[in-house]
Amino acid sequence: MEQKSATKYFPTVGDGSGLAGTEGLYKEELQLALRNRGMPLEALRYPITPTGLHYLLIHYDIPEVNAEKWRLKVAGLVGKPLELTLDDIKKLPRRTMAVTMECAGNGRALFAPRRISQPWLLEAIGNAEWTGTPVQGILQEAGIRNSAVEIVFTGLDQGVEGDQVQFYQRSLTVNEAMRDEVLLAYEMNGEPLPPQHGYPLRLLMPGWYGMTSVKWLDRIEAVAEPFQGYQMARAYRYSQTADGPGEAVTLIRARALMIPPGIPDFMTRNRLVEAGSVTLTGKAWAGRIGISDVEVSVDGGSTWSKAELGESGSPYGWRTWTFLWTATPGECVLLVRAIDAYGNMQPIDQEWNFGGYGNNGVQRVNVIVR
Amino acid sequence: MEQKSATKYFPTVGDGSGLAGTEGLYKEELQLALRNRGMPLEALRYPITPTGLHYLLIHYDIPEVNAEKWRLKVAGLVGKPLELTLDDIKKLPRRTMAVTMECAGNGRALFAPRRISQPWLLEAIGNAEWTGTPVQGILQEAGIRNSAVEIVFTGLDQGVEGDQVQFYQRSLTVNEAMRDEVLLAYEMNGEPLPPQHGYPLRLLMPGWYGMTSVKWLDRIEAVAEPFQGYQMARAYRYSQTADGPGEAVTLIRARALMIPPGIPDFMTRNRLVEAGSVTLTGKAWAGRIGISDVEVSVDGGSTWSKAELGESGSPYGWRTWTFLWTATPGECVLLVRAIDAYGNMQPIDQEWNFGGYGNNGVQRVNVIVR
Repeated sequence: MEQKSATKYFPTVGDGSGLAGTEGLYKEELQLALRNRGMPLEALRYPITPTGLHYLLIHYDIPEVNAEKWRLKVAGLVGKPLELTLDDIKKLPRRTMAVTMECAGNGRALFAPRRISQPWLLEAIGNAEWTGTPVQGILQEAGIRNSAVEIVFTGLDQGVEGDQVQFYQRSLTVNEAMRDEVLLAYEMNGEPLPPQHGYPLRLLMPGWYGMTSVKWLDRIEAVAEPFQGYQMARAYRYSQTADGPGEAVTLIRARALMIPPGIPDFMTRNRLVEAGSVTLTGKAWAGRIGISDVEVSVDGGSTWSKAELGESGSPYGWRTWTFLWTATPGECVLLVRAIDAYGNMQPIDQEWNFGGYGNNGVQRVNVIVR
Repeated sequence: MEQKSATKYFPTVGDGSGLAGTEGLYKEELQLALRNRGMPLEALRYPITPTGLHYLLIHYDIPEVNAEKWRLKVAGLVGKPLELTLDDIKKLPRRTMAVTMECAGNGRALFAPRRISQPWLLEAIGNAEWTGTPVQGILQEAGIRNSAVEIVFTGLDQGVEGDQVQFYQRSLTVNEAMRDEVLLAYEMNGEPLPPQHGYPLRLLMPGWYGMTSVKWLDRIEAVAEPFQGYQMARAYRYSQTADGPGEAVTLIRARALMIPPGIPDFMTRNRLVEAGSVTLTGKAWAGRIGISDVEVSVDGGSTWSKAELGESGSPYGWRTWTFLWTATPGECVLLVRAIDAYGNMQPIDQEWNFGGYGNNGVQRVNVIVR
């Protein structure tokens, strides 16, 4: 896999535990927040997120790729290793899907203590229309061997993390990689991928948190053992400790979010709403499981009412919900929660984990009605 | 101007001074950092910034605009008030220009103490190609009166700031508004404006910090007195105090930025570079004045050498600079500074001001060469 270990080059942020308590953000967290990008929540109004509003998490740098010289290498336990041009890939069966993507670290900065890393609140989301070709077809064309148990996807983005110099790499079991909906995507919202979303080609794993959808794909390799790279074995685990193996982060947990109603206060982002009828609306999703209900509370979580659910379009995309609220003057806190098709209800507060993953605790919107 | 004063609705962040010392960031600052967007510095490699990588500062919410019903109102001290459709505006003389835009608050979080607001470091920049029609022509068509001294531009974005419920509004003197290069822009990089950049129409004031280029334009009004709205009289002033009138923030100060070389450490964003010849490169700009020189230091600012300057394209756009560096193993700090056509040199540390504006102190890039 050509990953080198490195001596410890860079300073540790914080007290060495990897966690921060209630103290304010470190400059290193701010640096990450300013280069990665959240979706402003009013953009929940768009059924398909405009490209420039979709969230972005870029582990290292956006690499510079010359698409003419670029080739996708398919290697490892295959009968016929491949080197494909972008045109080769575009000639394969084409599929377009709306897919809600969410960063596994969404909600991280709402945990206490918080993992020192990209400090998301609620906005690491987006729902784009992706076009590509199923991974399945390419693995079949390469003649994947029965001895293969996982497929390792390697990006062109390189950096240092956990004291290792590494290209960004994630794996899928062969069974997961062979699912119909798993794509090698070359278009987003009907245009070639923009550089920041993985040009010229990325993996798209619908229903899973975004870390799996490797961008700037360089190489796909079939291997005989579960892959133990940094992003599989050390990062993206639900664990109570820095070292505990924990469980792998995979499917996106249920979540509903609300377009904050009324107008914002610049500094606090709290809302000012005029009394009267207010249509609360937003989107809800739950990986590939789907949503069964959305509930709204307009009294800080004491009582809950069912919202109306819009039609289910893409099985991997979000659904619109609406709720008619009669706003009366005073202060209140609005909440919304989703229940997935298996009956899992989004918690008020999600159970803590060290990495700050999968925090789908409910959104709270502070409102003044006048 | 239809701006209402409001009682104080929302909590104060911090100790009431508006400033924060060396403590970490407040949650409110993080909220702003996650919805506004910086340009990752490796995107300095693109002569024209891809739309989704350009910086964004959205004071309130991105408004929802129905372009069919939308009209630009031209009113006030004019002989013939106008209500123009987007098609009307597209029929007027068309002009396309590359323009470097920078937020007036870029560098704010590098001041100590810092103003509690959007906590930019260095990345609130972008260089897009904008298409539109000169404001000049529209004011002439409306028959602007000699008694007009300023033009007030009002956006559709509304919020609470400084205890005032307000639409975002900025003014220009008639002389400034009549300059050839001041556009009403309806395209960015050859496409209709995306929602987050002001769809369907925005002001574009080349060479000035971005606060003047009002998005989601609703109304242009010629007035007889200097406009005293919040964004003119209270925000965007170079002042030593919260209340001092200070000087208006206008032209973009000289700045050079470097693509951080080598590969990043995920957490600190410090760089790991292989020893040998390294081409350092980036962009430099100085409002509408232009750049005369760029200098690089590879020893933390002790000695400086001239970089090579690329051609000047657009008078309002950035220029490429390059510098060949022989990297030898060890730690070092790379710096780069621009000198504008009037001889103003970008300072190592800019003089402090209360609002945190115009901080063009030089970039420092921490590097380990191995």
